[in-house]
Amino acid sequence: MDPFSNLMAYVKDTRSLEYLAEILEWDQAAKMPHSAIEQRADSLGALTSVIHDRHKSSLIGEMLAKIDTAKLSLEEKAQIREIKRSFERANKIPSKLERTIEETTARANIAWEQALKANDFQKFKPELEKVIQLKREQGVILSSGGNPYDGLLEDYEVGMTSENLDVFFGDLKPRLNKLRDQILAKEEFQAPSGKKYSKEKQIKLAKELAGLFGYDFDRGRIDTVTHPFCVGAGNDVRLTTRVDEQDPFNCLYSTIHEAGHGSYEQNIDQKFCLTPIGKGSSFGVHESQSRICENQLGRSREFAGWLYQRMKDVFGEIGLSSSDEFYCWINQVKKGYIRTEADEVQYNLHIILRYELEKLLITGSLDVDDLEDAWNQKFLEYFGYPVESPKDGVLQDVHWSLGLFGYFPTYALGNVYAGCLYETMNKQIDDLGSSLAKGNTTSATKWLRENIHQFGALREPRETIEWAAGATISSTYLLDYLENKFTEIYSL
Amino acid sequence: MDPFSNLMAYVKDTRSLEYLAEILEWDQAAKMPHSAIEQRADSLGALTSVIHDRHKSSLIGEMLAKIDTAKLSLEEKAQIREIKRSFERANKIPSKLERTIEETTARANIAWEQALKANDFQKFKPELEKVIQLKREQGVILSSGGNPYDGLLEDYEVGMTSENLDVFFGDLKPRLNKLRDQILAKEEFQAPSGKKYSKEKQIKLAKELAGLFGYDFDRGRIDTVTHPFCVGAGNDVRLTTRVDEQDPFNCLYSTIHEAGHGSYEQNIDQKFCLTPIGKGSSFGVHESQSRICENQLGRSREFAGWLYQRMKDVFGEIGLSSSDEFYCWINQVKKGYIRTEADEVQYNLHIILRYELEKLLITGSLDVDDLEDAWNQKFLEYFGYPVESPKDGVLQDVHWSLGLFGYFPTYALGNVYAGCLYETMNKQIDDLGSSLAKGNTTSATKWLRENIHQFGALREPRETIEWAAGATISSTYLLDYLENKFTEIYSL
Repeated sequence: MDPFSNLMAYVKDTRSLEYLAEILEWDQAAKMPHSAIEQRADSLGALTSVIHDRHKSSLIGEMLAKIDTAKLSLEEKAQIREIKRSFERANKIPSKLERTIEETTARANIAWEQALKANDFQKFKPELEKVIQLKREQGVILSSGGNPYDGLLEDYEVGMTSENLDVFFGDLKPRLNKLRDQILAKEEFQAPSGKKYSKEKQIKLAKELAGLFGYDFDRGRIDTVTHPFCVGAGNDVRLTTRVDEQDPFNCLYSTIHEAGHGSYEQNIDQKFCLTPIGKGSSFGVHESQSRICENQLGRSREFAGWLYQRMKDVFGEIGLSSSDEFYCWINQVKKGYIRTEADEVQYNLHIILRYELEKLLITGSLDVDDLEDAWNQKFLEYFGYPVESPKDGVLQDVHWSLGLFGYFPTYALGNVYAGCLYETMNKQIDDLGSSLAKGNTTSATKWLRENIHQFGALREPRETIEWAAGATISSTYLLDYLENKFTEIYSL
Repeated sequence: MDPFSNLMAYVKDTRSLEYLAEILEWDQAAKMPHSAIEQRADSLGALTSVIHDRHKSSLIGEMLAKIDTAKLSLEEKAQIREIKRSFERANKIPSKLERTIEETTARANIAWEQALKANDFQKFKPELEKVIQLKREQGVILSSGGNPYDGLLEDYEVGMTSENLDVFFGDLKPRLNKLRDQILAKEEFQAPSGKKYSKEKQIKLAKELAGLFGYDFDRGRIDTVTHPFCVGAGNDVRLTTRVDEQDPFNCLYSTIHEAGHGSYEQNIDQKFCLTPIGKGSSFGVHESQSRICENQLGRSREFAGWLYQRMKDVFGEIGLSSSDEFYCWINQVKKGYIRTEADEVQYNLHIILRYELEKLLITGSLDVDDLEDAWNQKFLEYFGYPVESPKDGVLQDVHWSLGLFGYFPTYALGNVYAGCLYETMNKQIDDLGSSLAKGNTTSATKWLRENIHQFGALREPRETIEWAAGATISSTYLLDYLENKFTEIYSL
């Protein structure tokens, strides 16, 4: 074999092991008997360690040295780019630090669970301090002396810096704050009556919706779990969802969201399957695909009109007297402390709050001693009402206990990206609204497939979005969309 | 760490990866989307290769050399015995041969499927010839110049030789033949009417039965597949079953069989979990546990009496007018070509036929050209009626296409072992019959747990059985049991 093929064979095996590890994580959440938890954790640890060793293996360095990159195609260059990145990253971090982070976050995660249960941040604090200390150390190494937070960010959104984020989020904050204030000053929508929605029917309709948004069941499946997610690669990409008998929208919109992730992975060009670029371009780009399906398309007035009728077919009367009322209800904006339950308007404020705090923690400008106060103060400032309880505030998210600093911003970035893409999609598809009104999402999913999905990680995240949108990334598109939509819904 | 602990940490990681590979095979059979087949095969290939490399790693040799085995406990010595065996075996077979076998059996398996579909042995023949050639080569290496078939046997039943098998099976053949002839001369039992049995109710009762036979659902689960099996280790051992609306006994007795395997794995001492001896002692010993549950206990007159009532509770009338009629029906012996559908009397004849043929194939005394004729001739001789069609004869089993020569005998060995164990269990448990008549299997499952399960692979297979049975292994116990049972059922 030529040197390039040799290297590709090696990294394909590594990606294959990663794919298997993901399926095992799916199994753990969806199917595994509960008494297997410890044995599975140890076993997945063994597999993860094999994968890690492969990423840092000196074999990769030797093979890379033999390749004349000048002669490679664009796609091959992209493969090399990804291989080099993971190789260099893996070799930057000393094994000892990596292992300490793993052990510390395992303990911190348990402490967080106990603190959440006890509704007491003090129980989490000492462990969180250790995690932050280690992640700062890691950030310093990864950023090669630059901003340590940027070093961590790089793991989730290559090429993104806190400087860029400050611009995007700086644009979002004042206009979202204003919009939120205007909405919350209006009357709340009336909740539909306390009808029960059969779990079986919800799942059946959820599967129909996943299919509508481009998810292929020949190469995937849906199961129920506590916290929905999407895993897998290529021809084996699995969605999970949750079902609440009182609230069918939870299941339906979770599923559309995960179907957005799932169809992204499924529609990547088959020739990239189980190669370094055969996956979504970044966490942010991935989130843009789930959010555009869930919100810009799935919560549009047109699609809501169709879904209202479909839900009545499936469940009978649902306590909402018109498709207008239905549209308003699924887009309601109301007070709330919990990020994962937030609406389109307030969601990004939740993220910005976390971003600002974690940046301060990692750069050392905020002590964990002051974190709870800082959270509560910011929350009051951005949302207009005080946090009553740590479980609704600083303790609500699992991320920091797991050491996932730099992850939160990708949720809001996904929304910003989705704003850019929707602007362009809307211009390029003449009949988008009238199609959606008939429950026909083909033109939209085709656009996403052709402009985003098929390329996988061929391009870096920013280039991926800008190539598809034909414009520079900016928060303006998302803000314009939100202001138009909610001004109309709430007659502002 | 001391040298022994060092080695154990290494092999525990290997066993962990093996456990994960098993769960992934479960996933493939029970949950995986069908379009993922190729990607999964490649990925599992990558994982298997990692596991294989670990088994043959020179690190093991270096660690073994540092251990003073004289100072080890009995259990530690058993661990070393298993580690040495897999290390030596893995290093005996050249990687190139291993790889060629893998590729050749993959092709042969496809050829077998096509041949079975076309009902034409000629389509399988050329590929089977290649497989046999390679397995013979492997057998020569593994037996170090002895009988190459014994080299292969060693992979499934350590310490067993064809010389031993010839004795066990030589005892079985004439007495089973005679018993079969006597039975088939009698009238067949009347089939119950063509009632349909709800799949949900079958699964529910099957789960109840699995629980009765000692299977723990906190550490396992049951799903439906085409060909039932049991996989996993320790606290994550999974059963599969199949459901036929017309024939509830298929599901119920398959499940009891697999529950026998499952409770064996689950009840191995937790301190051996994910270590080299933390698994069943051999294929034959494993099969003895499934067969004793399915047959000696599950198809006993006493248990059948209880199950008859239980089935009537669950399904209403089942077209069998008494527990006697029920007992006869679930133990019926009738003509048939297919091993997997065979009754207690004829099953071992199916195995002996395969054993005799594959021994000749591997030692080179039978050409594949003559295999179909040899099969048909032996079948007529042992069963008394001719094979009409290759799909009912030489093509019916998947094993040879996969290169599993030496596997078949363990099915019959399991029956022989179960015969020995049941003889002893019956002597040692006073109220076995009266308990079973109340659907109470506790004394039996407790006996198996204490005398077999808890030890895992602490002892070699023969010693495992003889320790529990307190007697030398012999086919006589099985034969006596079968003759007594069927003489009564058929009034011979």
